[in-house]
Amino acid sequence: MKKIINKTENIVKEMIQGIVKTNKKVKQYQDFNVIYNKDFDKSKVALISGGGSGHEPSHMGFVGKGMLSGAIAGEVFTSPTPDQVEAAINAVDSQKGTLLIIKNYTGDKLNFEIAQQLAQANGKNVETVLVDDDVAVENSTWTIGRRGIAGTVFVHKIAGALADKGASLSEVKNIAEKVIKNVRSFGISLNSIYIPTTGKKSFTLGEKEIEFGLGIHGEPGVKREEIKPSKEIVKEMLDLILKDYDYNNSEVALMVNGLGGTPEMELFIATNDIHNYLESKNIKIYSSHVGNFMTSLEMQGMSISLLKLDNELKELLDFPTEVRNWK
Amino acid sequence: MKKIINKTENIVKEMIQGIVKTNKKVKQYQDFNVIYNKDFDKSKVALISGGGSGHEPSHMGFVGKGMLSGAIAGEVFTSPTPDQVEAAINAVDSQKGTLLIIKNYTGDKLNFEIAQQLAQANGKNVETVLVDDDVAVENSTWTIGRRGIAGTVFVHKIAGALADKGASLSEVKNIAEKVIKNVRSFGISLNSIYIPTTGKKSFTLGEKEIEFGLGIHGEPGVKREEIKPSKEIVKEMLDLILKDYDYNNSEVALMVNGLGGTPEMELFIATNDIHNYLESKNIKIYSSHVGNFMTSLEMQGMSISLLKLDNELKELLDFPTEVRNWK
Repeated sequence: MKKIINKTENIVKEMIQGIVKTNKKVKQYQDFNVIYNKDFDKSKVALISGGGSGHEPSHMGFVGKGMLSGAIAGEVFTSPTPDQVEAAINAVDSQKGTLLIIKNYTGDKLNFEIAQQLAQANGKNVETVLVDDDVAVENSTWTIGRRGIAGTVFVHKIAGALADKGASLSEVKNIAEKVIKNVRSFGISLNSIYIPTTGKKSFTLGEKEIEFGLGIHGEPGVKREEIKPSKEIVKEMLDLILKDYDYNNSEVALMVNGLGGTPEMELFIATNDIHNYLESKNIKIYSSHVGNFMTSLEMQGMSISLLKLDNELKELLDFPTEVRNWK
Repeated sequence: MKKIINKTENIVKEMIQGIVKTNKKVKQYQDFNVIYNKDFDKSKVALISGGGSGHEPSHMGFVGKGMLSGAIAGEVFTSPTPDQVEAAINAVDSQKGTLLIIKNYTGDKLNFEIAQQLAQANGKNVETVLVDDDVAVENSTWTIGRRGIAGTVFVHKIAGALADKGASLSEVKNIAEKVIKNVRSFGISLNSIYIPTTGKKSFTLGEKEIEFGLGIHGEPGVKREEIKPSKEIVKEMLDLILKDYDYNNSEVALMVNGLGGTPEMELFIATNDIHNYLESKNIKIYSSHVGNFMTSLEMQGMSISLLKLDNELKELLDFPTEVRNWK
């Protein structure tokens, strides 16, 4: 294993120090693995998300005006503990209430909900939403139900816009639920990754094999196939998404998400193929968002997310944000 | 080799189609491998850059108000031909003149200078600057003199800001030269890459080896060493940069550039170490720019660039740009 790290036990702490030294608009909260928007307006609803580390820029890279108010980084591929999540709620300290955006993994769900209860016991107004956009597998390693993957970033963006416009907690929760209802994702991987804390590969793939439907922690997918042209890969991924939800004659936002080690060149080639295929299906792409949004360390591969839009969602998607990782 | 591509001969064309479908502010110019800012104000100086493909987001990802006016993508790791560069000059068609920002590779220099002559013969006002920020090696594969690497993006940003403010061609050229004089870079790699057009690996590295000073096309560096902690890697890289140029008691902009396959986590750990080391040397970091700016396909590794600042450069660095890949 070759990685640019120091001691494995300090990976998350040192990463956070690097983030805070780079982004002058965020601060670390005390000694917690929490950062928050230092100019957060407490009269607005706070949006908090988080999860295991190794998925950067998710979620700390989306903290800023118009998206998240704060984020928590757990250890690598490990849910943040309830005290860390509660610390994030305290850090932003919204007077209007806080929405926790949780990706559907058993540990995340449990720990965020305990944090919600702790905060509620201290008089805080806290709600949660659970993102489960991955159509690949119903139950899997670490999850009951479907997993939350890159579609979560659409929830950050759209709920973040509505919160920034001054909406109430229930309105922000409702819009987040609407995005969750309208978004579906599917991922593929071309290679395995080294888990820095163990020095071990997460799984193995043959020289020419790709894995369909694998999770962002290297959880098993639905099948393995020989690598084939982008056009065919993309068609197979999209067919699974389109089978799961009715996008017929609708307008969508497209996210083509790199998993950390994918050359941008390949994401754009896939994007071109996705546009062509969706057009042939009479699905109109309103906007394309291409890049690394929710990664899995150095994994090569990508996920595709489709969000069905209406006028309300379009306006919030286009609403300005200061977050540079939103593209 | 596993890549998300279709036919190898169509890689660049399809990538450009994907870029244009994603970024509504740019257009492709006729059938050339050229994109340009479709709202470019022809009364301002145009900035054009380009080079082989495989270094995305360089350079097409930096086209937009406040940075490049247009960019050319050659075939993978191959200089754009003179007719393509000339097409970019015609696409933006500035009435005030055009500056070509060339990375110092023999092919790039030759082809951009031929394009300059062709355009001049057609009455265009065209100047060039040559970026050679890599302190690693003096002469190398494909280069006489030093290579141009990620420091080039500082030239795009700062010269782009001055051009956008309405400066003359000689003023824009002068500020570009000032950035080139003040910037130094050094890169390391942790692994080799597959060249999509040949299906071959660019070089090989041992299980625990990293290469110091290697180029963005996989050109040989200065030495190979066993992987070591980030703190030590960073110290060795910075010492070579600091030996080459006098940054004593100065303020700098720092770029920590991922080579395409590096987890963001590692870039931030390195950034933290770089801040700590430069502080110990009494060098103040004015701003940190961390992410993938100039990559080498799926290469893991990074380059560090230091730009010595004065008030003029600071103001231009902070000047707004619409380019989302600038961070």
